[in-house]
Amino acid sequence: MNDLLLRGGRPWTPGSPLGTADILITGGTITEIGPGLTAPAHTTIDLAGALVLPGLVDAHCHLDKTMYGGPWVPNTGGLTLRGRIDNGEGRRDELGLPSAEYAANLLGAMISGGTAHVRSHIDIDPEVGLRGVEAVRAAAERYADRVDVQLVAFPQGGLMNRPGTGALLEAALADGVAAIGGLDPAGFDGDPTGQLDLIFGLAEKYGARIDIHLHDRGALGAWQYDLIIERTRATGLAGRVTISHAYAMGELAPDEQRRIAADLAEAGVSMVTCAVGDAPVVPLRTMRAAGAALALGNDGIRDLWTPYGDGDMLRRIMTVAFRDRLVADPEIELALRAGTYGGAEVLGLTDYGLTAGSAADLFVVDAETPAAAVVSVPVRTLVVKRGRVVARDGQLVAH
Amino acid sequence: MNDLLLRGGRPWTPGSPLGTADILITGGTITEIGPGLTAPAHTTIDLAGALVLPGLVDAHCHLDKTMYGGPWVPNTGGLTLRGRIDNGEGRRDELGLPSAEYAANLLGAMISGGTAHVRSHIDIDPEVGLRGVEAVRAAAERYADRVDVQLVAFPQGGLMNRPGTGALLEAALADGVAAIGGLDPAGFDGDPTGQLDLIFGLAEKYGARIDIHLHDRGALGAWQYDLIIERTRATGLAGRVTISHAYAMGELAPDEQRRIAADLAEAGVSMVTCAVGDAPVVPLRTMRAAGAALALGNDGIRDLWTPYGDGDMLRRIMTVAFRDRLVADPEIELALRAGTYGGAEVLGLTDYGLTAGSAADLFVVDAETPAAAVVSVPVRTLVVKRGRVVARDGQLVAH
Repeated sequence: MNDLLLRGGRPWTPGSPLGTADILITGGTITEIGPGLTAPAHTTIDLAGALVLPGLVDAHCHLDKTMYGGPWVPNTGGLTLRGRIDNGEGRRDELGLPSAEYAANLLGAMISGGTAHVRSHIDIDPEVGLRGVEAVRAAAERYADRVDVQLVAFPQGGLMNRPGTGALLEAALADGVAAIGGLDPAGFDGDPTGQLDLIFGLAEKYGARIDIHLHDRGALGAWQYDLIIERTRATGLAGRVTISHAYAMGELAPDEQRRIAADLAEAGVSMVTCAVGDAPVVPLRTMRAAGAALALGNDGIRDLWTPYGDGDMLRRIMTVAFRDRLVADPEIELALRAGTYGGAEVLGLTDYGLTAGSAADLFVVDAETPAAAVVSVPVRTLVVKRGRVVARDGQLVAH
Repeated sequence: MNDLLLRGGRPWTPGSPLGTADILITGGTITEIGPGLTAPAHTTIDLAGALVLPGLVDAHCHLDKTMYGGPWVPNTGGLTLRGRIDNGEGRRDELGLPSAEYAANLLGAMISGGTAHVRSHIDIDPEVGLRGVEAVRAAAERYADRVDVQLVAFPQGGLMNRPGTGALLEAALADGVAAIGGLDPAGFDGDPTGQLDLIFGLAEKYGARIDIHLHDRGALGAWQYDLIIERTRATGLAGRVTISHAYAMGELAPDEQRRIAADLAEAGVSMVTCAVGDAPVVPLRTMRAAGAALALGNDGIRDLWTPYGDGDMLRRIMTVAFRDRLVADPEIELALRAGTYGGAEVLGLTDYGLTAGSAADLFVVDAETPAAAVVSVPVRTLVVKRGRVVARDGQLVAH
């Protein structure tokens, strides 16, 4: 007997026409997908023509920083990178951060919105040590079977200019953290070659993925993309290296954007864009045309950096599409693709998608087309993780 | 006997501390506001400490263009101004636009979100004539006692370069339309002096307000601000002239922004910003520091120009605040102020606010502070228009 049969939905696969199909799930995996399935199942749910989308991937957030679900904390961080870093570190203890409780609140909201996978950067510095790793692991444990969380050991306070941080990052990787992060190797850390060599070296040693925050603008940003592309080629880490934010990419001349996108694709380096404030968005059309991997994330959510955010990844997909002026349906679908398949690529998921053999991570919305779902951000009527119903009508299902 | 007593809410007035107060309403007007009111009322509602905000003002939308509540229409307009204008005109008939039905759908959504006042531009050109005015008036009539709609006779297809449009604009004003619009007098219409002289002349003749769409960027945009400021001074129309979008204002050097904001304030010219796509946002801090009036609007909502939008003015206030990187509470309140009091100033409302003697237009949300209400965009638990409950928990109350 199969576990679950989702009957009569319209599953979306990028680039394929929509059609009505049933989805058969057993042991957490999609075993069959197609019209008119008749196999018996323990539970059958009639989707009545609703749209079925693969589980959302939030490829860039900061679970360790969030105060989601806590009292309102007026922002005191201001707008400079330095000011926000100092404010973020300075008020951590006062506000009980990092907090497993707040991180779990946010994970709950994410799950109810259809997010199946999360990559969270975790601040690591000599003061906080690995407490962020512990807190977010505790939160993830609470929702272990409802969302997968991948951690990045992230030197938010600097690496080369913050003695002791490198050893802590290495300790995190040794302890099983999946990826190592970086932060503006030039503009903030002041030693681009040093930071990148250290990060790539640790990634090779521990088989870790790489995800580097790069806020540096203009030519300084573009130059560091080249440094990262170069090292990715040299180390054979293709497919495992990501540049997050990449603000410069959104403001360079179109020719330069195309040149970089082609190099990213060829070297196997991906980007993540979050459409934060007025910061430039990595151009989705250009990345797609070059075949370069692009993912999306919510970035900071209700933390000491930003008071904004709600963890809803479908709404973030809409925000990115809106900011990048994607208006035709196939363009809007680029954003949906980035928030699903693109995220899966960045996180290195091997069993992702709405196909037989894939993990049964999906959600259901009432929308006429995938583009309409992005634009209208409808309530998630059903969320399935590894074959189990984890949320209905925007609310978590009791454990 | 009074009509309505709202007990124990926390009404917000910009710049004043929040405190618990009761609000007494009779004949559609706030008659008393303060702690511990004891006057008897026909209906008493306990607000239990919820936040009370004045009715939202959507100072820039296009009710005549919307297809809100209709089937999904994939966008075919592209990204250029010319392409969108041609697409918008070309597909009007096929899609049954302008439509009183769609406009009413959208007004219903706006009301349920706490919007009390709407300024809608109405496309007028020799092909559509005044049909947009008729359609939107019919929709507004349906919700006559639940939202106030102010119309702008708007030459979307051009004025000087579109023979016959000027006479139609005049006919609309003669028929009682409150304001006359304009569109990029230089960049689109090609005759800035001609367009502005015509608009200001008609405004003087009919006692109309003025609201000019100005997408022109950089120096070309700034130069036209000066033309408009000059004519406002010359005609004595201070307080009645608005520049919508004003993209250039968001990208000029800070010194130039401050100079223009000071001139706007001195001449009595306001701006409206909508935070559309990647277009620059008029800087809220600069406008406030100069004392220049600024309002917000949703702009296009589910129309042939853009597939985006939902009519929720509180969410648009959040989007503007997010785009303008307003992070501290007093900064976020600038956006709320623009979406309420700022809009009232632009529309010329004389009885607006949460004070005795003001029209009883307000809404209620569960939020700790005004900034928290902007950031979290909570459901509007109660919406009151002219003293009558028109929506509860995000749903219209039956007529």
